[in-house]
Amino acid sequence: MTSIGIFGSAGRMGRTIADLLAAEGVALAGGTDVGDDPLPLAQIADALVDFSIPAALDANLAAARAARTPIVIGTTGLSDAHHALIDEAAREIAVLQTGNTSLGVTLLATLVREAAARLGPDWDIEIVEMHHRYKVDAPSGTALLLGEAAATGRGEALGDISVIGRGGLVGQRSEGTIGFASLRGGSVAGDHQVVFAGQGERIELGHRAENRDIFARGAVRAALWLADKPAGRYTMQQVLGL
Amino acid sequence: MTSIGIFGSAGRMGRTIADLLAAEGVALAGGTDVGDDPLPLAQIADALVDFSIPAALDANLAAARAARTPIVIGTTGLSDAHHALIDEAAREIAVLQTGNTSLGVTLLATLVREAAARLGPDWDIEIVEMHHRYKVDAPSGTALLLGEAAATGRGEALGDISVIGRGGLVGQRSEGTIGFASLRGGSVAGDHQVVFAGQGERIELGHRAENRDIFARGAVRAALWLADKPAGRYTMQQVLGL
Amino acid sequence: MTSIGIFGSAGRMGRTIADLLAAEGVALAGGTDVGDDPLPLAQIADALVDFSIPAALDANLAAARAARTPIVIGTTGLSDAHHALIDEAAREIAVLQTGNTSLGVTLLATLVREAAARLGPDWDIEIVEMHHRYKVDAPSGTALLLGEAAATGRGEALGDISVIGRGGLVGQRSEGTIGFASLRGGSVAGDHQVVFAGQGERIELGHRAENRDIFARGAVRAALWLADKPAGRYTMQQVLGL
Amino acid sequence: MTSIGIFGSAGRMGRTIADLLAAEGVALAGGTDVGDDPLPLAQIADALVDFSIPAALDANLAAARAARTPIVIGTTGLSDAHHALIDEAAREIAVLQTGNTSLGVTLLATLVREAAARLGPDWDIEIVEMHHRYKVDAPSGTALLLGEAAATGRGEALGDISVIGRGGLVGQRSEGTIGFASLRGGSVAGDHQVVFAGQGERIELGHRAENRDIFARGAVRAALWLADKPAGRYTMQQVLGL
Repeated sequence: MTSIGIFGSAGRMGRTIADLLAAEGVALAGGTDVGDDPLPLAQIADALVDFSIPAALDANLAAARAARTPIVIGTTGLSDAHHALIDEAAREIAVLQTGNTSLGVTLLATLVREAAARLGPDWDIEIVEMHHRYKVDAPSGTALLLGEAAATGRGEALGDISVIGRGGLVGQRSEGTIGFASLRGGSVAGDHQVVFAGQGERIELGHRAENRDIFARGAVRAALWLADKPAGRYTMQQVLGL
Repeated sequence: MTSIGIFGSAGRMGRTIADLLAAEGVALAGGTDVGDDPLPLAQIADALVDFSIPAALDANLAAARAARTPIVIGTTGLSDAHHALIDEAAREIAVLQTGNTSLGVTLLATLVREAAARLGPDWDIEIVEMHHRYKVDAPSGTALLLGEAAATGRGEALGDISVIGRGGLVGQRSEGTIGFASLRGGSVAGDHQVVFAGQGERIELGHRAENRDIFARGAVRAALWLADKPAGRYTMQQVLGL
Repeated sequence: MTSIGIFGSAGRMGRTIADLLAAEGVALAGGTDVGDDPLPLAQIADALVDFSIPAALDANLAAARAARTPIVIGTTGLSDAHHALIDEAAREIAVLQTGNTSLGVTLLATLVREAAARLGPDWDIEIVEMHHRYKVDAPSGTALLLGEAAATGRGEALGDISVIGRGGLVGQRSEGTIGFASLRGGSVAGDHQVVFAGQGERIELGHRAENRDIFARGAVRAALWLADKPAGRYTMQQVLGL
Repeated sequence: MTSIGIFGSAGRMGRTIADLLAAEGVALAGGTDVGDDPLPLAQIADALVDFSIPAALDANLAAARAARTPIVIGTTGLSDAHHALIDEAAREIAVLQTGNTSLGVTLLATLVREAAARLGPDWDIEIVEMHHRYKVDAPSGTALLLGEAAATGRGEALGDISVIGRGGLVGQRSEGTIGFASLRGGSVAGDHQVVFAGQGERIELGHRAENRDIFARGAVRAALWLADKPAGRYTMQQVLGL
């Protein structure tokens, strides 16, 4: 039976995943938190899920590589340097990094890419999201994932065209940019909306998560799917067969 | 130069189209309203647009067939009998019937069909729309168009699975149905949203029209495109190259 | 210590309330379900909460009156006859009937009443709500509660002006009416929006519930507040001090 | 007959106001744009409306004071220094400065203040708005107006608690703050939403403008109302009798 190890097991997502494993009878190999040595867990788990913090990614990835254990990375707030580390790891082990593990967001990203590809540059793209008051990074990993989908649909790199958190005398909107806006408050599990604004009309493509269970379910499904895969960087679209 | 005739020229959409033709320098062949004989106009126009009322469709179609003039039909509130008439006319002339002529809704319908095809029957589909206080039919033609797209994605006929205007002790929702809800008020040009509701999450795909100009633009674009086409039933997807 | 009895203890809300009482250390006097005799529970509880079905209301109220025990009624789908029964019971015991026990909706109803009072009859009022696929009545009790607030603001009786579930060739909207639209699907705990649609602008006042816990919390708070009150019909506004 | 002068007559709002005056038969005293001397117009107009740019406010106000002509200021993007100038002018002439002249937003601000006053600090307040791609300042003047209303309801000064345009590793949300998020795109006339996010529930209070006509109507109404008022700083609430 496939066993799963959790990096970041004391966090909100880590605990939700542990509860889900217990409820569904999936084996929990163990968990680590900031300061723990991740290697022993990486060695006994069949697959790892990481919902810790960006600062722990380096050590967690190194442990997964040393143990040759596939890893699902759901930590958000990653930098370009983190993504370079992930690409490097994917040459040795199976890695799936995603800003969102739900079926709904994974499908939404596909629709957003398609809409962006079919609508001309006179349709402005804006992404707005809301999360609970404890979230520390903005925009959310999911918002960036949706922004990547839109940029890909337009044949652009997101980093070249993203505008985050407008404020002040910012001037007129530049054509071809993708704007991000982040709301924080209450206990919101995660709402996202991608707006395509044209002359006289708007298309709005959105997702609402009622609770974190959907992310835990998707993360576990991804880990079980990844457990026997060869080295490479995988996507939720592949896990879900979309 | 291609000239366009308007059936229903005194109505809200008819007047908006006439204004647009004037603004864009497209020739207006003339207009008719309820009680007028449509044949003379059909004979001099290169293409016709019909935004009149369902009761006038029979005579308008007959005139278009007699004159062998292509026709765009934007009238909403059509019955199955009307659709049979349209199919019959399409064997002799080029016909495009649609609940909505905007680029945004046409693309949205494509995305809705795709989402419906990829999400299992445990995702419930609901369609909600809002229009100004003068609209006489519910659901809107656009809502039905989006419902058709969803039903097609699931391999069903909309008529078999639609539930319109819930009220009273209606019981639990039946799996596989598509629900419609209509709001009316103020001067709303037309808002639509298709909700896919799963366990713990929702995908919301919507469109907002700021004014009727976008429909007029699409109708004129469709009429100009249709003017030289052979007999057949065409779609806005074809006009817009989606 | 005040003990609470639950009519409808096997239902979704009944179970949520029982869980909450356990979590918060409030005494549970017991629970009944359809077919049980409600009198023994009414006699030992200090306050009752009823989230059963309309058909059980008659017997539940009779038991509360016989035992002279205050009762919070959260059952939805009530008829005028049920409301007459409640008014009658309120002459002997403390009764609080509400379509929604949350703080958010209670405040929203206050704002809706005020907006309706200040906006003229050329602002059309529409109420749209969404609930999970298992809900059997439409509109929701909360939607009706908000409709009552709007009607009160206008000095009207809701029953005279409500329009529920539009469908077909319904004609132009009648001035002064309040329209209701109901969506059903997935696991939605309860979303409501009241739209005031004027010429060229809309005001939208809404509420989203993430889960049933907020209703359970409000129901328990109401029951504890009601336990020592004399006969009369009370409101959530009074419980919450709004 | 009362005549109205327009500062910023070549801008989007200026032109909309001029069209409205013509349509409604109200006398237009004239218009100025950047670089014009505002004094001659101030001397012949019975009331002034200013929808120009912040950099022109100083000269426009000085002209209004010199001519002792009441002035409605709808220019957005104002600094604290501008507000000090306005307060100073209001000692000599009638001044009404507002981020939004519509009936809907004016009422919404009243509701937002009330909601903020009644909900405790554990309800987080966030304000999100969307405007067309040509708007140069963020947040919109209307968003700030709504933020002022919320801050007033809580007995706070907005400047002490506002958070504008989150981006990066911003950390957990600080209790008591009011967040602002701005979307830009297409031809959106102006959408605003104030979100009160509590534990397990949200209240959302919003406004949608379909076009700029509602702002022009309100500005003209305010100017006509202000024309015979003594020195002082007035509000749209007073103009509309809310």
